[in-house]
Amino acid sequence: MREDGDVLSPSHPLTDGRTSASSVVRAARGERPERTPVWFMHRAGRTLPERREAPDGIELLDAYLSPDRAAELTLQPVRSHGIDAAVLFTDVLVPVRLAGVDVRFDPERGPVLDEPIRTASDVLRLRPIDPAVLAPLSEAVRIAVAELGDTPLIAVGGAPFSLASALVEGGPSSEHLRARSLMYSDPHTWAALLNWCADVTGAFLRAQVESGASAAQLVDPGIVSLSRRDYQRRVAPHSKRAFDALRGLEVPKLHVGPGGEALDLFPAIGADVVGVDWRIPLDEASARLGGGVPLQGNLDPALLAAPWPVLQAHVEDVLDRGLAAPAHIVNLGADVPPGADPDVLTRIVELVHARL
Amino acid sequence: MREDGDVLSPSHPLTDGRTSASSVVRAARGERPERTPVWFMHRAGRTLPERREAPDGIELLDAYLSPDRAAELTLQPVRSHGIDAAVLFTDVLVPVRLAGVDVRFDPERGPVLDEPIRTASDVLRLRPIDPAVLAPLSEAVRIAVAELGDTPLIAVGGAPFSLASALVEGGPSSEHLRARSLMYSDPHTWAALLNWCADVTGAFLRAQVESGASAAQLVDPGIVSLSRRDYQRRVAPHSKRAFDALRGLEVPKLHVGPGGEALDLFPAIGADVVGVDWRIPLDEASARLGGGVPLQGNLDPALLAAPWPVLQAHVEDVLDRGLAAPAHIVNLGADVPPGADPDVLTRIVELVHARL
Repeated sequence: MREDGDVLSPSHPLTDGRTSASSVVRAARGERPERTPVWFMHRAGRTLPERREAPDGIELLDAYLSPDRAAELTLQPVRSHGIDAAVLFTDVLVPVRLAGVDVRFDPERGPVLDEPIRTASDVLRLRPIDPAVLAPLSEAVRIAVAELGDTPLIAVGGAPFSLASALVEGGPSSEHLRARSLMYSDPHTWAALLNWCADVTGAFLRAQVESGASAAQLVDPGIVSLSRRDYQRRVAPHSKRAFDALRGLEVPKLHVGPGGEALDLFPAIGADVVGVDWRIPLDEASARLGGGVPLQGNLDPALLAAPWPVLQAHVEDVLDRGLAAPAHIVNLGADVPPGADPDVLTRIVELVHARL
Repeated sequence: MREDGDVLSPSHPLTDGRTSASSVVRAARGERPERTPVWFMHRAGRTLPERREAPDGIELLDAYLSPDRAAELTLQPVRSHGIDAAVLFTDVLVPVRLAGVDVRFDPERGPVLDEPIRTASDVLRLRPIDPAVLAPLSEAVRIAVAELGDTPLIAVGGAPFSLASALVEGGPSSEHLRARSLMYSDPHTWAALLNWCADVTGAFLRAQVESGASAAQLVDPGIVSLSRRDYQRRVAPHSKRAFDALRGLEVPKLHVGPGGEALDLFPAIGADVVGVDWRIPLDEASARLGGGVPLQGNLDPALLAAPWPVLQAHVEDVLDRGLAAPAHIVNLGADVPPGADPDVLTRIVELVHARL
């Protein structure tokens, strides 16, 4: 535990200016820092050697809930690669588990529910999250932030649709037939479930920011299965609710999800920065957003395994196209995939930082 | 075996006019038949009770390669639901298997390769398909077509990208990191692999049409992972090659794949009809295609489990929006999902046929 008054673990992390000159925070505010910021999402335990030590996921959850260990794993990618932001070593479903839902963290399949949430009565049984249950995660953030100095930690939470679809499906799914069936069949239960997810993620993001995170990011990979209309009407209001939980905390808010048809809807939910995956080039994404929105992305994880000249040309193309936006934070459109070569990540960081 | 000269199994199936007045063929030619055609894809064995009888997939392959059994399973959905087209009971990877690649048909996971195709030498070892190996499939089509009378059978084949990504990944994948990595890293090997897949699928489609199929459809679910640019440059030419294998056979060609960014590129590969899944409403899809292309779709499989009034409203909305196109064939944007209620499918057919 750090002592109160420690300058690296201030009681008012938002006003201490510790990270306000960092490239990530400046870019998120729409500025062009001297060096283009770059970071990678090493969030999921599945991308780290720990996965091989966790036969049934119990040890993985133990790691998530051990503040010192989680903080150490949070710092490791910053030290290894020289990236410009950290993200807590956790899983977006950890706060769901802490809120009382029996999620297992399967090293191979990811989060799994033996009893998925599928009915109105399942949803009625969900209890509001008590922010106190997030204490181990807050403590991990405080420890990590104290070590990070002027490098920001970005709080990452699962957007309500992606959390809800995981709870309804019970495991990995690409088209979310059961979740979307509930969405159409019982809109009231759907809205209640998404509000519950929004509140869990909102509390999770808020706890991290109150503990020293400098920005907050919602990730919503699941929306690749949605039409624009369904996203706008049945999902976006709940994502807005998750961001609204940060009211009064003046941190930049980022949204990451396969944009496609819905890309231009993300600023309305509260996103200051829009993440773009490899499917849409940044110049086109910027045009769809009206040209005034800072972007994050859009390295293609499939290129991490390509020969360096091919990957280098891709990184440079991404940087060039990113100039169309007012600011650009370089990032993969997804988690670092299992098996990625750490040296390649470091080389990307060096390349991005060397470009002026 | 049917005898030569049998009027239901003609030696020139394309010129006998047997199905030329059918609603599917007329709609595919851009006309508006009296009743809007509707059919469902009961292609995969996984959606049928057979899956529970096939512990390791061997029996499933046996069923695919048994002409009488495959024909019977091809006819069953037409008889049960009164749909306006049949599709051969098979898997799009069956011709790949017959061409010498060791694919297993896992009832749970779908097609699986124990030794995925990932290197230049793997691709070099692929041998051209001998159309003679398709004889059991052709025979199944002939038997089914003889029973179908004036109801068309649509030949369905996997598009080169979806076949190739299955071969490279070795099993289910949503982002196709390995396949796309090969695409970027070794464009020549990639092109060779996709040409091989195009030729296998082209031979498969051609064999079915020569045996009496009245239309040919390429399915490409995997392209949801692609940018428009990559689809256009590195995939579309191979899909065109698959359709080109039908040269001289005057049947309508349909393309089904998650359109998104690439929707308007499908006519250029040879598609007369563009399939649209639930992510884009038909009026918008028609506008993106310039208003002159017949459409297929776009029932949402997630709604099959919804209460009837909700599903009915959805079907009617799809029909209304489909009026924006010159013609419309009603279809799910995907295979019938496992567990779908057969009575619901029949009710949809009745609803579509009752609407004038």
